[in-house]
Amino acid sequence: MKYAAYIRYVGTDFCGYQTQPDKRTVQGELNKAALAVFGVPCAITGCSRTDSGVHAEMFCLTIEPQEGGNRIPANKLPLAFAPFLPWDISLYYAVEVEDCFHARYSVIKKEYVYRLVYSPVENPFQKNRVWTIRRHLRDGELERMQQACAHFVGEHDFVSFMSAGGQVRSTVRTVYSAEMECEGNALVFRITGNGFLYNMVRIIVGTLVDCGSGIMDPADIPLVLAGKARLRAGQTAPPDGLYLNRVWYEKPF
Amino acid sequence: MKYAAYIRYVGTDFCGYQTQPDKRTVQGELNKAALAVFGVPCAITGCSRTDSGVHAEMFCLTIEPQEGGNRIPANKLPLAFAPFLPWDISLYYAVEVEDCFHARYSVIKKEYVYRLVYSPVENPFQKNRVWTIRRHLRDGELERMQQACAHFVGEHDFVSFMSAGGQVRSTVRTVYSAEMECEGNALVFRITGNGFLYNMVRIIVGTLVDCGSGIMDPADIPLVLAGKARLRAGQTAPPDGLYLNRVWYEKPF
Repeated sequence: MKYAAYIRYVGTDFCGYQTQPDKRTVQGELNKAALAVFGVPCAITGCSRTDSGVHAEMFCLTIEPQEGGNRIPANKLPLAFAPFLPWDISLYYAVEVEDCFHARYSVIKKEYVYRLVYSPVENPFQKNRVWTIRRHLRDGELERMQQACAHFVGEHDFVSFMSAGGQVRSTVRTVYSAEMECEGNALVFRITGNGFLYNMVRIIVGTLVDCGSGIMDPADIPLVLAGKARLRAGQTAPPDGLYLNRVWYEKPF
Repeated sequence: MKYAAYIRYVGTDFCGYQTQPDKRTVQGELNKAALAVFGVPCAITGCSRTDSGVHAEMFCLTIEPQEGGNRIPANKLPLAFAPFLPWDISLYYAVEVEDCFHARYSVIKKEYVYRLVYSPVENPFQKNRVWTIRRHLRDGELERMQQACAHFVGEHDFVSFMSAGGQVRSTVRTVYSAEMECEGNALVFRITGNGFLYNMVRIIVGTLVDCGSGIMDPADIPLVLAGKARLRAGQTAPPDGLYLNRVWYEKPF
């Protein structure tokens, strides 16, 4: 039996998604909950490995209980898990999937959202949920960030936008869309692509902010990509504003 | 010197607005911050007394430092207070006002917002920020709540919608508007009036929910008002979903 499930989590109090000894992780909490629900250890595979402090609105994972566990219909999983999950994770949808479905390798597209607020004073309702840049947005700044966005779309070698520590064969990725818009008091950056390198979205956002403030020129983004060196890109945005917002699979479920 | 300032706060970790011995309150934290900012004790008067767990987006207060304190221009107060306030309060706007201005008695209108979510599973991003009713909204339920809303508008004796413990001369209040609408995954109830009794908004919301579920009939609201007894009204909604959203004064500032 293999389930696919969607969870959301507030990343603030987790040392990222992936299990680590003696650290509070999303996967660690899921393992404990799944053991309580099924009565047997379960193999859990996530669609991504988010960092400490990064949030998820739609994170997909598969759950495979060992033989002999409780038999639970997929549509009952949200209510079955609720009592065993901590307040900052919820499992809100589940279906049965075929054995060949893989939470990570079957992904065809992901969307990340990054929320930025330019304000001299932090809004307590947004604590740990946005990146607050403690000044007002200046004239022309949003427009420069939007110009910069356009240069990220397409197939590129994004190695300039990867932190050390990523283990990947290729650093080429395709970005399908990259846009920045005002929503309420926040600037919301949305990016979709077939995959993302380690810290890629955070470095892109940091670079956009540097384009806005004038430290960098939006027209230089193609040179930064061509330069293939992390030093050419801008700062790394903090994790607080980053949300894994959606994942797509070949066969929707 | 008398300042008027706007603050917002996340009410979850406060025992309400008003100072109480040995309790963490919004006013208690403001007193400490104001002492640090001005170097002298300050008289602080708030526009309202919100309960434990109730939030504020726009709460107005006056600050009157004793003689001999630091002289600070009003427009510098947000940055001056920021280092001395806890994460869950922010002071975001301040002006100088005349001595006759009173944060509570000069209010001519207030708006409260209440956020409700019907969902079998809680959304961690909304923890302590909405009232989650753990089932799906049923057909016709929103419409019945909207019908009920209309009966609250106007001048009424709201004593049926007051908890014991309120100390007021008159229980007559005028509600200018009362509406319920969908916003994202939440139902948002907005009510404006010239004043509100103790727990009045929470009892109105609880009554709306009971009208939605069918425990009460929206058409009976006028009878509940006329009955002038708390027992006739519905349940009291929890504080988590309630926000003091805006206050108006005769002379806007």
